Amino acid sequence: MDAVLQELKHIIQACDRAITAEDFDTLMTYYADDATLVVKPGMHVTGRAQIRRAFVAIAEYFKHSMVVTQGEMKVVESGDTALVLMQTMLQTKGDDGQPVTTERRATYVFRKASAGQWLCVIDNSYGTDLIDAV
Amino acid sequence: MDAVLQELKHIIQACDRAITAEDFDTLMTYYADDATLVVKPGMHVTGRAQIRRAFVAIAEYFKHSMVVTQGEMKVVESGDTALVLMQTMLQTKGDDGQPVTTERRATYVFRKASAGQWLCVIDNSYGTDLIDAV
Repeated sequence: MDAVLQELKHIIQACDRAITAEDFDTLMTYYADDATLVVKPGMHVTGRAQIRRAFVAIAEYFKHSMVVTQGEMKVVESGDTALVLMQTMLQTKGDDGQPVTTERRATYVFRKASAGQWLCVIDNSYGTDLIDAV
Repeated sequence: MDAVLQELKHIIQACDRAITAEDFDTLMTYYADDATLVVKPGMHVTGRAQIRRAFVAIAEYFKHSMVVTQGEMKVVESGDTALVLMQTMLQTKGDDGQPVTTERRATYVFRKASAGQWLCVIDNSYGTDLIDAV
């Protein structure tokens, strides 16, 4: 299998584990300084500090019950830029305490930093569903 | 409306006109040297010369009947990188000579070159449908 795909898969798995563990310091090491996160359709935040705050708020919103796992993944590369298309499963607890699983088809853009590490520059877990947002 | 969104919208409209007119020299001025085009799921080509050849082959495949137009568009920016999520309508002629319209939900990655011009680095008109490709 493609080396870049494998490398990015490991990075995204590490991010998912960090989100699930609410280890936001580790999570932030995978984002570029000026990265942008789509918090929800119509709401974007830019910069590590803002992204970290958004993840803290998301964890609180889901009452610390969020578990993120991956499904199928494809990568399109161009030099030091990679577009990731990915199935993401978001498991949370509903108001009745029962688990609720949401599947998203995410789009992530990664850039290879000068040190050779891939960093997330655009994190849009809503993928092309964003087109329908008002 | 957002300035970068307007700028990218005009660039993509110019690309669509160039594809429809089969003016591939003009089209190539909007792609980075090392850009990657998803020709179809599972088939990517990298570099201007390869992308140009793919567009020539696509035009022949559709018997020079292809008309490309845009629908809704959203942009997520991070510094000199922009992710475009976009409805793309592809009108071609079927075997019976009748027009066939295909709607795609595309994902494009643009980078701002040092001269300040936005160039397409990843052209994936299949969007997250690529996840389902074998």
